[in-house]
Amino acid sequence: MVCNMQSQRRTIMSDKVEKLEKLAKLIRYYILTATTKAGSGHPTSSLSATELMSGLMFGGLFRYDPDHPEHPNNDRLLFSKGHASPLFYALWLAAGKVTEEEMMTYREFGSPLEGHPTAAFPYTEAATGSLGQGLSIGLGIALNGKYLDKLPYKTYVLLGDSEMAEGSQWEALELAAYYKLDNLVGILDVNRLGQRGETMYGHNLEAYRQRISAFEWETILIDGHSIEEILDAYKKASAVTGKPVMVIAKTVKGKGVSFVEDKNGWHGKALSEADLEKALDEIGEVDKSIRGETAKPQDLRPEEPDIRKAAETSYRKGESIPTRNAYGNALKRIFPEFPKLVGLDGEVSNSTSAEYFKKAYPKQFFEMFIAEQNMVGAALGLATRGKLPFVSTFGAFMSRALDQIRMSPYSDANIKFVGSHAGVSIGEDGPSQMGLEDIAIFRAIPGSVVLYPCDAVSADRLVEEAAGHKGIVYIRTSRGGAPVLYDNKESFPIGGSKTLRTSDKDKATLVGAGVTLHEALAAYEELKEEGIAVRVVDLYSVKPMDGETLEKAALDTGFLVTVEDHYPEGGIGEAVKSMLSGSSTPVYSLAVHKKPKSGKPSELLNYEGISRNAIVGMVKEKLS
Amino acid sequence: MVCNMQSQRRTIMSDKVEKLEKLAKLIRYYILTATTKAGSGHPTSSLSATELMSGLMFGGLFRYDPDHPEHPNNDRLLFSKGHASPLFYALWLAAGKVTEEEMMTYREFGSPLEGHPTAAFPYTEAATGSLGQGLSIGLGIALNGKYLDKLPYKTYVLLGDSEMAEGSQWEALELAAYYKLDNLVGILDVNRLGQRGETMYGHNLEAYRQRISAFEWETILIDGHSIEEILDAYKKASAVTGKPVMVIAKTVKGKGVSFVEDKNGWHGKALSEADLEKALDEIGEVDKSIRGETAKPQDLRPEEPDIRKAAETSYRKGESIPTRNAYGNALKRIFPEFPKLVGLDGEVSNSTSAEYFKKAYPKQFFEMFIAEQNMVGAALGLATRGKLPFVSTFGAFMSRALDQIRMSPYSDANIKFVGSHAGVSIGEDGPSQMGLEDIAIFRAIPGSVVLYPCDAVSADRLVEEAAGHKGIVYIRTSRGGAPVLYDNKESFPIGGSKTLRTSDKDKATLVGAGVTLHEALAAYEELKEEGIAVRVVDLYSVKPMDGETLEKAALDTGFLVTVEDHYPEGGIGEAVKSMLSGSSTPVYSLAVHKKPKSGKPSELLNYEGISRNAIVGMVKEKLS
Repeated sequence: MVCNMQSQRRTIMSDKVEKLEKLAKLIRYYILTATTKAGSGHPTSSLSATELMSGLMFGGLFRYDPDHPEHPNNDRLLFSKGHASPLFYALWLAAGKVTEEEMMTYREFGSPLEGHPTAAFPYTEAATGSLGQGLSIGLGIALNGKYLDKLPYKTYVLLGDSEMAEGSQWEALELAAYYKLDNLVGILDVNRLGQRGETMYGHNLEAYRQRISAFEWETILIDGHSIEEILDAYKKASAVTGKPVMVIAKTVKGKGVSFVEDKNGWHGKALSEADLEKALDEIGEVDKSIRGETAKPQDLRPEEPDIRKAAETSYRKGESIPTRNAYGNALKRIFPEFPKLVGLDGEVSNSTSAEYFKKAYPKQFFEMFIAEQNMVGAALGLATRGKLPFVSTFGAFMSRALDQIRMSPYSDANIKFVGSHAGVSIGEDGPSQMGLEDIAIFRAIPGSVVLYPCDAVSADRLVEEAAGHKGIVYIRTSRGGAPVLYDNKESFPIGGSKTLRTSDKDKATLVGAGVTLHEALAAYEELKEEGIAVRVVDLYSVKPMDGETLEKAALDTGFLVTVEDHYPEGGIGEAVKSMLSGSSTPVYSLAVHKKPKSGKPSELLNYEGISRNAIVGMVKEKLS
Repeated sequence: MVCNMQSQRRTIMSDKVEKLEKLAKLIRYYILTATTKAGSGHPTSSLSATELMSGLMFGGLFRYDPDHPEHPNNDRLLFSKGHASPLFYALWLAAGKVTEEEMMTYREFGSPLEGHPTAAFPYTEAATGSLGQGLSIGLGIALNGKYLDKLPYKTYVLLGDSEMAEGSQWEALELAAYYKLDNLVGILDVNRLGQRGETMYGHNLEAYRQRISAFEWETILIDGHSIEEILDAYKKASAVTGKPVMVIAKTVKGKGVSFVEDKNGWHGKALSEADLEKALDEIGEVDKSIRGETAKPQDLRPEEPDIRKAAETSYRKGESIPTRNAYGNALKRIFPEFPKLVGLDGEVSNSTSAEYFKKAYPKQFFEMFIAEQNMVGAALGLATRGKLPFVSTFGAFMSRALDQIRMSPYSDANIKFVGSHAGVSIGEDGPSQMGLEDIAIFRAIPGSVVLYPCDAVSADRLVEEAAGHKGIVYIRTSRGGAPVLYDNKESFPIGGSKTLRTSDKDKATLVGAGVTLHEALAAYEELKEEGIAVRVVDLYSVKPMDGETLEKAALDTGFLVTVEDHYPEGGIGEAVKSMLSGSSTPVYSLAVHKKPKSGKPSELLNYEGISRNAIVGMVKEKLS
């Protein structure tokens, strides 16, 4: 009896293996034909992971409803090695969700099957292709499953061996272990070869095991072409608790096509028509009608967060409050209205004031330590699961994650970035801590919004505006206290500005934002005493910009002076000049032109020529 | 006899320890007084590493001639935890190189003793303060010692425990082991506390040992306040061969001042006057006259590289060559003229063509794998030792190292960055691989130069110009072939441009660079056929920009059209518009406005409206 059951199990198992082998053939067929048709792509990097991926998707453990990719309890699969996109698309073909005809549009203009996966393809969890990002995104999705939605789905990330050189991977490894993400499984495709030659560790799987297990992940070493070992590994992985799992698979780049197998010089190259023919001969007969099935997810729904009564914030005109503090208060205030809000901070929450939110709603906050790349990747992962991440660190350190930031629009991501300690006005800490290129960076992100409040009221309102806006928003906050200028009832729509001083005798227009707005107001007073009327505009929305107000200023007044605590290039001055291109009204731009140093904020504003004195001087010079 | 010698050794040892204890007292005194005087700074982070650093500098092993910081065989010490600058400066006070008066200018405007070390202080090897950068810089210095200069100096890097969360640290760890840098010693100050609370691993030294030794470093665990253990550790470290060493030290944040020791909430805070008094009482009597001595370095000089006869390059007009290939050729050609040149590439040397140089001069090239942050840090380290690093990867992936790039001017660094595969014109690989914000990034770096050749001849010359220019230079190269336009004798000074088509009937001026220059030339031909004369300017020097030529174009022609394969913000269009601000001649900017996708280069140029057709259309629209 026992004997019979065992043999029955063996038969079921061998049927399953046989079917997976057929599916692998089908997938290889489409990897090769689609790339040759396209004339480019990465067939060899796809072939090495074919069994790993078909075994995962169709081996019975992966739970996903292909008719409902949005199902909150679907397992999730990311290709961190995004160049293996032919495999990715062929998997979904094998799942019945891509037709042969569609597959053959791979890399064509207008096809959702782009060279590296993007949001154009509905089964892409997040756009990849810049290596070393997928594990962080997966970490965000896993954080969501374990701590927010409290759903049992698992997140799988296919990783390349070459990309393990990226530091961001080790950030993700350390944080995933810290957060005990036993719902996260990495699958490391060790095919030995990078783009231009052998990786640092070649086929030494032990080198990976040693490092990854030191980071307190469970590791499972397998032959990445043995379906039995693969199925066994995923089964083992699903039983691990309290830590994440890395399946480390020895594979052969180009597997299945003898004349490219394990050979250097075949990265990112499609086969010629003649080579394709040879390759298909080697693969043998393909059953094009076969399709794989994923297991169905349990139909569970996310937990809802605890929401308390909205906190009230109101500020007294004239009181001195740093905009960074208003940011922290605002998160607390708006959470009831935006219950998907999640805070992430890179070990500086006491400076960015994200800690105000953390203290009020600890379950909605993740400490991401000094690992900004992973923080941004994780934010994207959370965003893919419908969360509304607010990511904060010093404006200067946003630069650490620029590759992740620039990739996020290709995932149609909804993420808010908040950079504190902007500009030379932070003072004594010196240039390493000064965000001086953050506006340029975030302006260059397609579709982005860049906001720069000058006081607590506008900071509060702009946080709310950002939360309500779908897409990438950057909010720049300041270290030092600034007097409250606005009434609590004031509204600050994205794309607007505030004209704070105006008369029909304005000789010039001063355009400031953040700390320089206060300098502009002080300059206004000095100039007024000398009988010189100027207009003052608070350009709190740097992108999009209130062109109408600026164009009117260019018509009404003799010239504009922009003042910004930022390097000139890509900043407010260039944005305003570009907006007014073709107008004969000159725009003079005051910005950080000299290499900054330590000193008192006022000394540095003077040194860089962006203080009230510099503004007054510029206006008088141009009027004389 | 044996007994006597042992006891004598013990006496020498205890004299040494006694002196080091006195020096530690002196250093603590200045850490505390200077920060209280400044009213800011990081005394507690300095106090934890006081014995570690005084033991290193004055314990007999550190070889440095303080009168000749430029000596090529000095050992090198970097503070990766740059916020411990009070300790750094106090060390050099104890070495007799900073006076008490100077020490008391800490963080004042104009003082070389800035909040975080910068090039303003002569003993700063490289500016730090953005965490997680020092080990990569040290790695570059160690690469230089072991493989280029072949000098026996050692490089020591003081690391904070909190910054070990940065992925860049693990990039440096893996690469240092790969290159067997037994001349590199990290000193990890495990004081348990980050800025806002406990680090990921607290005082669990084993967590660090496990991870770092898995990365194949020798590890030595010590009590970081025991001078005996410290001296013993450095002695052991200096005996290790074939791999780098990490001294992992258990320390107490705020050590020596009982009421701040190991307490949260004291990061980055100076003591009040009253607290300072209490603290100094605890420290007890300080011998202000005591000074430490460093050991003298052997007076050795660097090895010179093997140089072969200059390679000739000449290009035939009209032949199609990608500028990235011309880059590789140019490096080979100019090496005899620039024998300090070193190539670094992030595992894409077959794409950037850096491999041409690597194959010709393998000893001058370092494969840095897919770890761009460490690559840029290492380049800075090499630059500090007088080398001329050319750092290449895809333009898109420069974004990965922006924090390191933005920090480099604060070290007065001389580094050349070369980003290939710029723009949508790379085609099928899609947006993840397209450099579309690289111009914006590099323009925002203070003092930078941004060059963008359109053909092989100009690429060749601009590489030479870059090599001869001291500072940060970015060269943007293209993937696809482009016809050679220029004669081999042409020169391309930084800040210049080339007017390729001009007449006295020009209705408009087309400003292109790189791939769009060829589109502009094609548009010229089409417009000419319709009887419309236009000027065509090759703006190969994007920063600085040839204002004279553009101003003349604004005077001579009705309008300008800029065309760029880059996002609009911070790019060529904004730069030209800013240059011509106040001129009534309009500038119309064609740039990448839509989210890019996969497709043929020509399809994408058309889709984004930056092709010849778009230019012709724009000119005709504006003329109608």
